[in-house]
Amino acid sequence: MDHALPNLPQSPYPKVIIVGAGFAGLKLARTLRNKPYQVILLDKNNYHQFQPLFYQVATAGLEPSAISFPLRKAFHDTPNVTFRMGGAKRIDQQQNRLYTDIGYIDYDYLVLAMGADTNYFGMESIMKNSIPMKSVSEALFIRNKIISNYERAITIADESKRKALMNVVIVGGGPTGVELAGAVAELRNKVFPKDYPQLNFDNMKVVLVEMGPSLLAGMSTTSGDKAKTYLEKLKVEVLLNTAVADYDGLNVTINGETRFQTHTLLWAAGISPNFIEGIADDQKAKGGRLLVDAFNRLQSSRNIYVLGDGCLQKGDDYPKGHPQVAQVAMQQAKNLGNNFLAKLNAKPEKPFRYKDLGSMATIGRKLAVVELPFIKFQGFLAWLTWLFVHLMAIVGVKNRIFIFLDWGWNYLAFDPSLRLLIKPTISKPEDREKLVAEKK
Amino acid sequence: MDHALPNLPQSPYPKVIIVGAGFAGLKLARTLRNKPYQVILLDKNNYHQFQPLFYQVATAGLEPSAISFPLRKAFHDTPNVTFRMGGAKRIDQQQNRLYTDIGYIDYDYLVLAMGADTNYFGMESIMKNSIPMKSVSEALFIRNKIISNYERAITIADESKRKALMNVVIVGGGPTGVELAGAVAELRNKVFPKDYPQLNFDNMKVVLVEMGPSLLAGMSTTSGDKAKTYLEKLKVEVLLNTAVADYDGLNVTINGETRFQTHTLLWAAGISPNFIEGIADDQKAKGGRLLVDAFNRLQSSRNIYVLGDGCLQKGDDYPKGHPQVAQVAMQQAKNLGNNFLAKLNAKPEKPFRYKDLGSMATIGRKLAVVELPFIKFQGFLAWLTWLFVHLMAIVGVKNRIFIFLDWGWNYLAFDPSLRLLIKPTISKPEDREKLVAEKK
Repeated sequence: MDHALPNLPQSPYPKVIIVGAGFAGLKLARTLRNKPYQVILLDKNNYHQFQPLFYQVATAGLEPSAISFPLRKAFHDTPNVTFRMGGAKRIDQQQNRLYTDIGYIDYDYLVLAMGADTNYFGMESIMKNSIPMKSVSEALFIRNKIISNYERAITIADESKRKALMNVVIVGGGPTGVELAGAVAELRNKVFPKDYPQLNFDNMKVVLVEMGPSLLAGMSTTSGDKAKTYLEKLKVEVLLNTAVADYDGLNVTINGETRFQTHTLLWAAGISPNFIEGIADDQKAKGGRLLVDAFNRLQSSRNIYVLGDGCLQKGDDYPKGHPQVAQVAMQQAKNLGNNFLAKLNAKPEKPFRYKDLGSMATIGRKLAVVELPFIKFQGFLAWLTWLFVHLMAIVGVKNRIFIFLDWGWNYLAFDPSLRLLIKPTISKPEDREKLVAEKK
Repeated sequence: MDHALPNLPQSPYPKVIIVGAGFAGLKLARTLRNKPYQVILLDKNNYHQFQPLFYQVATAGLEPSAISFPLRKAFHDTPNVTFRMGGAKRIDQQQNRLYTDIGYIDYDYLVLAMGADTNYFGMESIMKNSIPMKSVSEALFIRNKIISNYERAITIADESKRKALMNVVIVGGGPTGVELAGAVAELRNKVFPKDYPQLNFDNMKVVLVEMGPSLLAGMSTTSGDKAKTYLEKLKVEVLLNTAVADYDGLNVTINGETRFQTHTLLWAAGISPNFIEGIADDQKAKGGRLLVDAFNRLQSSRNIYVLGDGCLQKGDDYPKGHPQVAQVAMQQAKNLGNNFLAKLNAKPEKPFRYKDLGSMATIGRKLAVVELPFIKFQGFLAWLTWLFVHLMAIVGVKNRIFIFLDWGWNYLAFDPSLRLLIKPTISKPEDREKLVAEKK
């Protein structure tokens, strides 16, 4: 859009645009609350999404609203932070101007915290037919898809067609794939048989396919092996060293042959940084991550910063860049926020140092693996640790209370109650036309 | 679909098909739980919807899941009741066969409890451009629409265009229209100004248009007048004796001239019974309601019953039929359920007698009107009564707890937290294609 974005408040302070309100963008905007900067926070959605719990939305354990936080609410009574819902399209680095789909905005500083989307590794059939899970909308889409498939399966006489509707294949053995596989297996083991007494759930396969030699590649092999044991206990078929080559919406091709038939292939095999125009080739690494220095400043730029999954910051400990995880994004945002505050007092800015606080994944009810800097543990205690850490990390007191209650309910009742197919639509035009015609 | 619906359990008992799982259908199915009937419950959705609270979903006060109850869960451990998600299309009264979009089913008894949809009174422009609210999906659509309009308004420089995005016009002064108008006004008065500090909310009109001489036509004029006073206190513009003749998506035409400009015209002005093929003309009244006897049996039929909004049962007290409200539907279902049980013991069946338990409507925080058989009251006590009655009427313990907590939160924090634009979609094909192209 080739006009200036209107209705922005006037301000005497330097203007910082933050693109993206994920872990990094939200953290930075919060650090700059009520400080002498004019902050414009831009996101495609009007809410912050808590990505680690997407899988619970996909498997009917949590409502989307429980893991989403309205951004406008986060900045009530904060006149120096202005939120706008819109997508960033192009940077004009000479003019210090950001073009968005709601108008352009000039900046003194620009911070790109745009995160990453699904990586299909160039495979068109996978892109067209698989389902990604990189947003709460996509998680809700998965929930609807799985439930619709079951409602369809029970109306079908042919057994092989029913099986294809019931099977779920998940590709990618990272935390997302592992957590999804565990949660889907628990639905199959405990919940669906009560909902669909006329279906035979021995027929339903839950498959997790990983290209590498172990699950949870970012963690130790102990944790990876334990996760595999836990999944197999839940009767998930785990295939390691295995790549899915093709998927036409029904047949999953592995090693040149159809190994499974499913209408639901969930793709959690990789991520790719979100794209924006106006970045020079020498500012970008292969794969699309943007090159930054130790202060997260974009290469050859004075006033553009990049945070989180979208940046590549090489250092002695991380010659290939930091892992693309929430911890890195949040710590980079905190460091950059402090550097913005340091600028105000002409104090020296600090380079970023990543402090690995550990990682964890949950496989199912009472099953998880946790790695902290000095200790690794698994099982029930790990599961409690996982619950506690995620509950504390959620934005918003109300969300925290409601998730706590939801988890309590689901644990006690073994009955995630959100098996609802609700879509925000109005009645179909043809039905409405019928109503009009009848009244004429 | 011209094949029998497969996967139904075998049963030696008479087969009762219930079409629709609203207040009447759900009540009847529950009455027949674990009785010697084979019950097939059919609904277009896999959940029961609690219609009296749609307006709170539309105004971001409650999550759709809080007022929706999964039907399969309602019939766990009830082998004689089988739920199928599907739409009824046509009855073959000779063959005792119901055709649905998932296959046909033969019945011994058929119960139509299909409810009603929006009535546009034959006005095509209204049908095309207004937004109805007869399902939880439509309520969610309204929430998304209002929030999108605001996010758009704040990116627009032209003030008159902004106003049209901010105004909300509601047509129909029954309980739905009154409750919607009150809730939208409260968003305007208390919530939106904090969310959008750069918009001028004096510019936002909330208008309620009613064709008749008073609001809440089903109640006394005392209640109707009080509701009007309350709404005006919340700065709602109430127009009585006024009909909307045309709406092109922007201009609202009243008495031949454009009285308001709005992108959001909510239509709650009337209902029309849902339609099914295979009903003879002499079984149907003008307007589409199906004629039934005192036992809710369809005219000239031996084994088809009709319950709730879709039936017309004349009696001495109600020469034009009963009011189309939840109370009637539930009482008819209870009576029919008892008659089904009476058949088993060859006892005499009872004709339906409607017992009017009263009615109520809430206008806003601490404001409501209540009419019980022997007393009418308004204000704070009425509001508490309204809250209590609705909380008790909700299906499902979890829903009840969560609504109670939501209401408590909203009351204390004055901050309905669901101002989220979440749609169950996956990333757009063109964006995904870009991701693929970049990786090739």
